[in-house]
Amino acid sequence: MDYRSVETTEEYVCRLDHGADWRAEIESLADEEAIDAAFFYGLGAVEDAEVWFYDQDDREYDSMVFAEPLEVAACVGNISWLDVAEPRSGGSSDEQRESSSGERFAHTHAVLSGPDGEAIAGHLNSATVWAGELYVRAFEASLDRVHDEPTDLDLWEL
Amino acid sequence: MDYRSVETTEEYVCRLDHGADWRAEIESLADEEAIDAAFFYGLGAVEDAEVWFYDQDDREYDSMVFAEPLEVAACVGNISWLDVAEPRSGGSSDEQRESSSGERFAHTHAVLSGPDGEAIAGHLNSATVWAGELYVRAFEASLDRVHDEPTDLDLWEL
Amino acid sequence: MDYRSVETTEEYVCRLDHGADWRAEIESLADEEAIDAAFFYGLGAVEDAEVWFYDQDDREYDSMVFAEPLEVAACVGNISWLDVAEPRSGGSSDEQRESSSGERFAHTHAVLSGPDGEAIAGHLNSATVWAGELYVRAFEASLDRVHDEPTDLDLWEL
Repeated sequence: MDYRSVETTEEYVCRLDHGADWRAEIESLADEEAIDAAFFYGLGAVEDAEVWFYDQDDREYDSMVFAEPLEVAACVGNISWLDVAEPRSGGSSDEQRESSSGERFAHTHAVLSGPDGEAIAGHLNSATVWAGELYVRAFEASLDRVHDEPTDLDLWEL
Repeated sequence: MDYRSVETTEEYVCRLDHGADWRAEIESLADEEAIDAAFFYGLGAVEDAEVWFYDQDDREYDSMVFAEPLEVAACVGNISWLDVAEPRSGGSSDEQRESSSGERFAHTHAVLSGPDGEAIAGHLNSATVWAGELYVRAFEASLDRVHDEPTDLDLWEL
Repeated sequence: MDYRSVETTEEYVCRLDHGADWRAEIESLADEEAIDAAFFYGLGAVEDAEVWFYDQDDREYDSMVFAEPLEVAACVGNISWLDVAEPRSGGSSDEQRESSSGERFAHTHAVLSGPDGEAIAGHLNSATVWAGELYVRAFEASLDRVHDEPTDLDLWEL
């Protein structure tokens, strides 16, 4: 297992905007506060959701759209940099990252549930927030996603 | 997105009492330790559960009762003040809140599962603890829930 | 409710090895870093999974095997010591625990999901990692599991 000890720089309690996109809300916090590495979890409800399942054989995500109100029974994820084209020299994440071809990405999984309690879950690409409450823990570390051959996913090099 | 940077005052590892109510256990910790703001997550099992689904059209919670043993595959939530009638002047949450018409409320979501692994999920109103393990992180901030017009829910003003 | 205030010694961001066992990966981190107490959460995907449901009447775990790729929509758990035969005198968990008949155990629950988003959940005994991302928070406290009569489980004495 690859792992890294991290130091926390800041902790946030968040209320997602009603009507906004769940994941975009998290990424806007990341941009606003210059968060390069974080883990988060939370709960709430959404008006609809697009959930992805990764097909390990075809190596691509299949999308499912649920056009109905759902509880967010649990949401777990992290923030890191995606699609950084040129390798950068290490360095503190404290300093503003001024040149990068990447973007802050909120890798977001969620367990949703309907009126009978039935649960659907997976990778949450998008969802219209009804109400959302999130705890975000930002780290000093810089986490970059790079293409991983065995899985065809963008994973961290730790 | 509304958010607030918070400082942690204390962290707790908890074992919920066998036979007690899952949410009441969390709220009794909150009262005992005077926790005005916190996030928590955990796992365990319950003997039964009452799960709520919020009907976004009718603006009310529908209740479902599951009178059977279930795993708590994941439990995510937070502690804050509910139904504070009079607006209070700001002030540190460190000091005992002596006069308030509100109460500490553990907003609790859970993913439960049965003998075939099938998952049911939603807002956990109550559940009889079989065994429960929780991590609670208390913040210095004071979080109050006030009525929110667009959703008809009690949400934070951050 | 039994609970204990804890101090954090270290925080880790982890990437689980592709092809390894999900729970064994966590326990190898625990052994490598001498983590005696921790909580963790994370997300990812697995190639298969063995999920357990605790039968509260028969007082034993029933096993379910899912021999198919699944998303790990949410994974929540903790690390503590299991099967410590002789009671030890208290003491800081900072010092290496040199004599013990127990082992570090990652109590792991997970919510998994398939290609239609359908969720299955429970106690995760084992699973082949496709990709996994975990946040682990280690505490100074020592947490030991001992046999609990009412539930026939190994629970903490806090």
